[in-house]
Amino acid sequence: MTQIIQMQPQDEFTGYYLLKECEVKQTNATPAKDYMDIVLCDASGQISAKYWDATQTDKETFFPMGLVKVRGLVQTYRDKLQVKIQRIRIATEEDGVNIADFVRSAPVQAVDLVYAIKQAAAGIGHADIKAIVDFCTAKVEDKLMHYPAAKTHHHAYYAGLAYHMARMLELGEFVCKQRPFLNADLIKAGIILHDIAKPEEMTAQLGIVSDYSVKGKLIGHIALASGWIVEAAIHLGIPLDSEPVLALQHVVLAHHNLGEWGSPVQPQMAEAVALHLIDSLDAKLQMVEDALDTTPESEPWTPMIRGLENKAIYRTNL
Amino acid sequence: MTQIIQMQPQDEFTGYYLLKECEVKQTNATPAKDYMDIVLCDASGQISAKYWDATQTDKETFFPMGLVKVRGLVQTYRDKLQVKIQRIRIATEEDGVNIADFVRSAPVQAVDLVYAIKQAAAGIGHADIKAIVDFCTAKVEDKLMHYPAAKTHHHAYYAGLAYHMARMLELGEFVCKQRPFLNADLIKAGIILHDIAKPEEMTAQLGIVSDYSVKGKLIGHIALASGWIVEAAIHLGIPLDSEPVLALQHVVLAHHNLGEWGSPVQPQMAEAVALHLIDSLDAKLQMVEDALDTTPESEPWTPMIRGLENKAIYRTNL
Amino acid sequence: MTQIIQMQPQDEFTGYYLLKECEVKQTNATPAKDYMDIVLCDASGQISAKYWDATQTDKETFFPMGLVKVRGLVQTYRDKLQVKIQRIRIATEEDGVNIADFVRSAPVQAVDLVYAIKQAAAGIGHADIKAIVDFCTAKVEDKLMHYPAAKTHHHAYYAGLAYHMARMLELGEFVCKQRPFLNADLIKAGIILHDIAKPEEMTAQLGIVSDYSVKGKLIGHIALASGWIVEAAIHLGIPLDSEPVLALQHVVLAHHNLGEWGSPVQPQMAEAVALHLIDSLDAKLQMVEDALDTTPESEPWTPMIRGLENKAIYRTNL
Amino acid sequence: MTQIIQMQPQDEFTGYYLLKECEVKQTNATPAKDYMDIVLCDASGQISAKYWDATQTDKETFFPMGLVKVRGLVQTYRDKLQVKIQRIRIATEEDGVNIADFVRSAPVQAVDLVYAIKQAAAGIGHADIKAIVDFCTAKVEDKLMHYPAAKTHHHAYYAGLAYHMARMLELGEFVCKQRPFLNADLIKAGIILHDIAKPEEMTAQLGIVSDYSVKGKLIGHIALASGWIVEAAIHLGIPLDSEPVLALQHVVLAHHNLGEWGSPVQPQMAEAVALHLIDSLDAKLQMVEDALDTTPESEPWTPMIRGLENKAIYRTNL
Amino acid sequence: MTQIIQMQPQDEFTGYYLLKECEVKQTNATPAKDYMDIVLCDASGQISAKYWDATQTDKETFFPMGLVKVRGLVQTYRDKLQVKIQRIRIATEEDGVNIADFVRSAPVQAVDLVYAIKQAAAGIGHADIKAIVDFCTAKVEDKLMHYPAAKTHHHAYYAGLAYHMARMLELGEFVCKQRPFLNADLIKAGIILHDIAKPEEMTAQLGIVSDYSVKGKLIGHIALASGWIVEAAIHLGIPLDSEPVLALQHVVLAHHNLGEWGSPVQPQMAEAVALHLIDSLDAKLQMVEDALDTTPESEPWTPMIRGLENKAIYRTNL
Amino acid sequence: MTQIIQMQPQDEFTGYYLLKECEVKQTNATPAKDYMDIVLCDASGQISAKYWDATQTDKETFFPMGLVKVRGLVQTYRDKLQVKIQRIRIATEEDGVNIADFVRSAPVQAVDLVYAIKQAAAGIGHADIKAIVDFCTAKVEDKLMHYPAAKTHHHAYYAGLAYHMARMLELGEFVCKQRPFLNADLIKAGIILHDIAKPEEMTAQLGIVSDYSVKGKLIGHIALASGWIVEAAIHLGIPLDSEPVLALQHVVLAHHNLGEWGSPVQPQMAEAVALHLIDSLDAKLQMVEDALDTTPESEPWTPMIRGLENKAIYRTNL
Repeated sequence: MTQIIQMQPQDEFTGYYLLKECEVKQTNATPAKDYMDIVLCDASGQISAKYWDATQTDKETFFPMGLVKVRGLVQTYRDKLQVKIQRIRIATEEDGVNIADFVRSAPVQAVDLVYAIKQAAAGIGHADIKAIVDFCTAKVEDKLMHYPAAKTHHHAYYAGLAYHMARMLELGEFVCKQRPFLNADLIKAGIILHDIAKPEEMTAQLGIVSDYSVKGKLIGHIALASGWIVEAAIHLGIPLDSEPVLALQHVVLAHHNLGEWGSPVQPQMAEAVALHLIDSLDAKLQMVEDALDTTPESEPWTPMIRGLENKAIYRTNL
Repeated sequence: MTQIIQMQPQDEFTGYYLLKECEVKQTNATPAKDYMDIVLCDASGQISAKYWDATQTDKETFFPMGLVKVRGLVQTYRDKLQVKIQRIRIATEEDGVNIADFVRSAPVQAVDLVYAIKQAAAGIGHADIKAIVDFCTAKVEDKLMHYPAAKTHHHAYYAGLAYHMARMLELGEFVCKQRPFLNADLIKAGIILHDIAKPEEMTAQLGIVSDYSVKGKLIGHIALASGWIVEAAIHLGIPLDSEPVLALQHVVLAHHNLGEWGSPVQPQMAEAVALHLIDSLDAKLQMVEDALDTTPESEPWTPMIRGLENKAIYRTNL
Repeated sequence: MTQIIQMQPQDEFTGYYLLKECEVKQTNATPAKDYMDIVLCDASGQISAKYWDATQTDKETFFPMGLVKVRGLVQTYRDKLQVKIQRIRIATEEDGVNIADFVRSAPVQAVDLVYAIKQAAAGIGHADIKAIVDFCTAKVEDKLMHYPAAKTHHHAYYAGLAYHMARMLELGEFVCKQRPFLNADLIKAGIILHDIAKPEEMTAQLGIVSDYSVKGKLIGHIALASGWIVEAAIHLGIPLDSEPVLALQHVVLAHHNLGEWGSPVQPQMAEAVALHLIDSLDAKLQMVEDALDTTPESEPWTPMIRGLENKAIYRTNL
Repeated sequence: MTQIIQMQPQDEFTGYYLLKECEVKQTNATPAKDYMDIVLCDASGQISAKYWDATQTDKETFFPMGLVKVRGLVQTYRDKLQVKIQRIRIATEEDGVNIADFVRSAPVQAVDLVYAIKQAAAGIGHADIKAIVDFCTAKVEDKLMHYPAAKTHHHAYYAGLAYHMARMLELGEFVCKQRPFLNADLIKAGIILHDIAKPEEMTAQLGIVSDYSVKGKLIGHIALASGWIVEAAIHLGIPLDSEPVLALQHVVLAHHNLGEWGSPVQPQMAEAVALHLIDSLDAKLQMVEDALDTTPESEPWTPMIRGLENKAIYRTNL
Repeated sequence: MTQIIQMQPQDEFTGYYLLKECEVKQTNATPAKDYMDIVLCDASGQISAKYWDATQTDKETFFPMGLVKVRGLVQTYRDKLQVKIQRIRIATEEDGVNIADFVRSAPVQAVDLVYAIKQAAAGIGHADIKAIVDFCTAKVEDKLMHYPAAKTHHHAYYAGLAYHMARMLELGEFVCKQRPFLNADLIKAGIILHDIAKPEEMTAQLGIVSDYSVKGKLIGHIALASGWIVEAAIHLGIPLDSEPVLALQHVVLAHHNLGEWGSPVQPQMAEAVALHLIDSLDAKLQMVEDALDTTPESEPWTPMIRGLENKAIYRTNL
Repeated sequence: MTQIIQMQPQDEFTGYYLLKECEVKQTNATPAKDYMDIVLCDASGQISAKYWDATQTDKETFFPMGLVKVRGLVQTYRDKLQVKIQRIRIATEEDGVNIADFVRSAPVQAVDLVYAIKQAAAGIGHADIKAIVDFCTAKVEDKLMHYPAAKTHHHAYYAGLAYHMARMLELGEFVCKQRPFLNADLIKAGIILHDIAKPEEMTAQLGIVSDYSVKGKLIGHIALASGWIVEAAIHLGIPLDSEPVLALQHVVLAHHNLGEWGSPVQPQMAEAVALHLIDSLDAKLQMVEDALDTTPESEPWTPMIRGLENKAIYRTNL
């Protein structure tokens, strides 16, 4: 079966794909004709597709986020590849295909990532900090298994959020070993909590964010998570004025570093500075790694990466 | 008794003043000699003073924020007026002076301002919004009677915070009448809540902020107030996901308008836009009014005002 | 008759509309075919339309800013609604339709707005200020009856400029009552004069700006109005150095507040600060109100508003 | 007679200097003692001076901007040279010294500079442009003989403004020869008019700016000059809407290039772009030349220059 | 033969043009049809063209940067002119057309420009500076005959780089004459070297830049040129620490003036300041001149110019 | 012996210290009296000191960067501690004190740091990269043993540069293990080379930077290091166009990430992105650690840290 990243102009192919987007549009012929404007994806990437000969039944059959079997022809349209769909049908149970195989995923199993996060939480020594972390994690328990970390910016795939947390925990552990003056409990807790409200900020399915929620737009994941810490403290009977509550709120509120990046306060504890830097290092190197992974080997340059000052990355031969 | 704003070079005077700051320093004579570096204030302004002949007893007697009787001589030092203290003693009960008369205050009695705020709160129609407002207001009940709205920026005097709220409520009422599509309950609640956590952000006495609290620096009054709304909702049994809770959190979080001014989200409800503009109009015109009030009539220009792009204001003769 | 804001995909309709834009283009069929690319509007909004079967006579018949009778079908094209015109003709006198009913207008009659502005001007106590205001107003007398306040930014409709001035005068009156230290004459004059040169800066018809004038681009409405004050003073024999002339020039020049927003000097008089804030409050709340008004009730979010940091506004259910 | 730029620590000297600033202050000895804090200058530079033993008569005798005869000792105070005045008296007619010899001046005689400017104006071919230039120049006729171009930024000395204009005219002539598509009349007029209102914006004596005028702060030299062009056109009967009036206003209004540098419109005519660049080149190279001239030869680096991104300039040995 | 700048809607024409871009695309008809999307250019400008009836042979025949003979029809598509190609063939030797006549060129012969640059280099008095200039110039000897100075920004045509250097040398000579304190050798060398590495930064043919090189993106012409100076010094046995090497590196590194414009250090020598200003003046006035030249005389406004704050330029009638 | 960080007001002490700065100044008594303005330091910090009774001999005896024995009294002057020197003499050999014990040093022995760096270099697999690294390192061989990494910003102490490199190498090793797609040779080389030219950019003794060199100001350490790579390649016969040379120049040039931070190109290779992030993480956490280390334990807040958005750091009790 042809993977999307390997499609070449003039290829004819038959295979299963995830119907990621799907909309009825009209040609500007006279009279206008309906067609379906589609985005197909698999674990290797995604591609735009046109289904010119959509019937009325077709229009009522296909909806986003379902698996389909497609026969198509790869063409070039305005410098980009595009599929002309020749045949398409909904995949059935008999086809034996599994939707999870058709979405980009973190390179580590979600279950292992969540396990690693739980282990880290379990290793927090300070009882109040641990309890608050557990309370907040419980609020998004199942979403943690599959949510991406962002819409497009970085770790934008199945279990991307858990992957981001797990890698940051590894890096955080190293940094705490290198610099023992840092409070390792706070670093761990900060890593687990800093993006914990993202699943409430965005609506996602199969690792794909379709939109921001009203709550996500009006409050944002930073103030949401800070509110969860307040909520946890109240439920756990931890005084709101106590140092752990202040410190956890601070590291979460400050993790974007600057006001223009969404943090209402700037890092003013060593652990808040460290959390911001660990987050930034992991997110940005992941952007680079993802961009290189999804750019065909033959291309020396990735597309421009918005989170890296709109720069493209050069693939060295060294 | 000579008011500070009226002091002229070479004046000799005797009077009561508030000892706002007071520190023992040493001259760079050889051998060095101790003296007291003092700031005196009254309701009309403040002035730097030197007490060159401080005895050991003096050094143990005088502390900030007490009333003193002073005989002094007004001199000019580096282009500014400065008092050379000739005699100084602690004011006693027999002197019959009242500390409240020696600090800058809002032009309206604190008790009337708080009454106006309570009336406004009482007039909120939506039960949940009203209950949340009452819960948060109760947290700072007594501080509302005397706290300033800022350290130096605007309304930096006794009951300045309540005065800011009361004036904004008047303006908000006018704007809601002019534009009925605005939700008047949200506007009122937003005005009362937007700076409600300032008394926790700063430490103040007699309308004078001495410092920011640890909580104030690490969390800030914006995220603090947002947390209080969460706390209120939990205590009152109002769902955290309900529209009033989201809306109140949003208007508070967004009231500084931009990230670089401390708001983690930007205004995305009509009432949030309105609240920001009403706040800005009241704060900035008050800066102008205060600057003109504390500049001697004979001066055509006020000092530079930091909150107004560092511009001085010209006093027109029109 | 179907209002444009109410059109739904697949609607067929017949009605009168204003032909706002109208251009002959060519399809990319082979051979290419001419068609007319049209924008229809009424008081509720505007919609793109295609007239695929335009004859040579059609091409010579239809021009922008005339009323037409249209039979059409509503379609969806690239996520937006679009009309496929089936029949179209010029509206005649017998149709009994009035062009003024087909453009967006201020919610108050232009004649009442202009009357309110004249009343305010008449109430200016200072003779020189009043005379200068009258001189400048006279230069745009008839344009004041119908000009918008901007191309798209805010108050972009019939009599929008007069509406902006009238609402600002109401707000200004309130602010002067709340803060008597402000010179009410200057505030009134500033409100009337601050955008008085906009009708020279832009070319508009029926409340729709088609372009900026050469003068508008090279000088701008701010320096133009400042020049009119000079002109007025010369004609009225008021010394150019006198305080009223300086003050009026200043409040007009400074009303955009910052250099990057087009003001060559920043506000340095109390009334200049107030004028900027009153202008800003009225313009921004109007943007919000207009965006909510022109967004179908069923949509919870307006489109992004450029003048509000590119934020969309959420329509609360409270 | 010792020139100020040549003074070295421990030098004793006697000579004539200009008393540029002069203020009575008090030592912080106990009791405090009056002394005079003085700035002396000559054509080579300026130096701070203290007159510790000032008598009551002295205090009533010395005022800024008069010539004095001084005997003094050069000392080092906080890394800077400073004169300890041993004797000082007002210079009398018999001393035969001329105040003009004690101020920094343009390196060309003012009379020659003004002549060059007049010649350039006389060479303007377009009658209306020439007439407007003459009208505006006439308003500051005598100030043109001695005004500096700025308070400290560049050309801050006697006849600095005329020198700036004359050098720009030379450069403008070269540029017009190199690029004949430019309108040489507009370039010449723009050069003469762009800073023509500076003498009204600032108060200066002997090439030294003491302050900005009220008019200078509230209107600024850019909008002032634009107003003068309006005034000229009215007096000369040239229509305000005519191309020369628009063009002249435009090049003046736009000559600071950006809004944040004070231009309400940006250059939109070739000549406006050229004027900005010629102005910038002349002003910035003059800052460099002046900084090198007033830095002792032995110093490899000048002080930091604010107008050049706060950089110091290295004096190359090449 | 119709020049591209003179083409009008509905014109039919036959002539020779340079095929600047040429790509096979597909219509969105069903079934899709191949066509060729082409850009034609001549010395007066360029125009988009469609060749709808391209055969398989055509697709294998036409490639960018060759001369073709075209019969076409001028149409309007989305407000822009576009050619519908009716016939097209490769130009042959018999046609007697010369490719150099079909590209935009500097208004002076390349050979004369290069001669002027060599003359200037020959006039450098300081032996080491001269030798370094010669070494670096030799590296791009032949490219200097035809390279543009930029992709689109300024001087984007045949021999544009040499033209930019030659004009800057004229201006530099004038400035050195006006200000003798400048080191004329450094100014000349700086002008010749500042953009000398541009031919390595970009790939260009016939004055048209097709792309930036890997080296151009990773190092940039500024650091490249600085490296060439190091290389020259090593080859010529000039100590790397010597003043000429430092000074030349500095003026090259600093010529973009600010870090955000690509200079790692800011100008800190008089000649570095001058070089930046001369470069800026020449580049910006050339942008204006080029924009006016390539805008039809009938248009009062040029398109927006990115290098001039996105402003369009008004063509005055004066 | 009293460590400087432990000095309290009124302490009398005798001990050895490093005379870091030492200048003769004059009191403003009449007549003025000479005194010595001194900065003393030891490994724990530094303190300002005054020696009021300096004799002529003293003035000719004491110079910066020598060890002295001091008897003094700790006083408070303008809110800061300051030593009044009662006796002072040059330390002699008999005193048995070692200057290296009196300067702040990296917490690891310089010899061990340099060994670690050499080991890392030795482990580079790619022969050309290794050779270039060795060549550049050899240029600053001995300075690497003691140079600080910056004047005040971070790692501003003895062997601070080597410490910064060694810690970054540890972190780089971890990151390369976590993300095997990164080229570990380039990361190692980038870490060793990125600040390798700092010893030429600054003049330092005992870990204290006294100034920037001319070369440091005019070229900067970034372009200097890029030039050294060119130099190395020429000497080693490695083609300047080869991938290792380009890649090394790129990672060095881009390591400050943004133009406004001094990088002429932005990171466009994965390793360049990684190097910037590793550098930033190490530098910023070190600033925090150093600030906490040099702030007395009793203080909850460090001074403001310029490299961290001017924020102070709170010392948590957790």
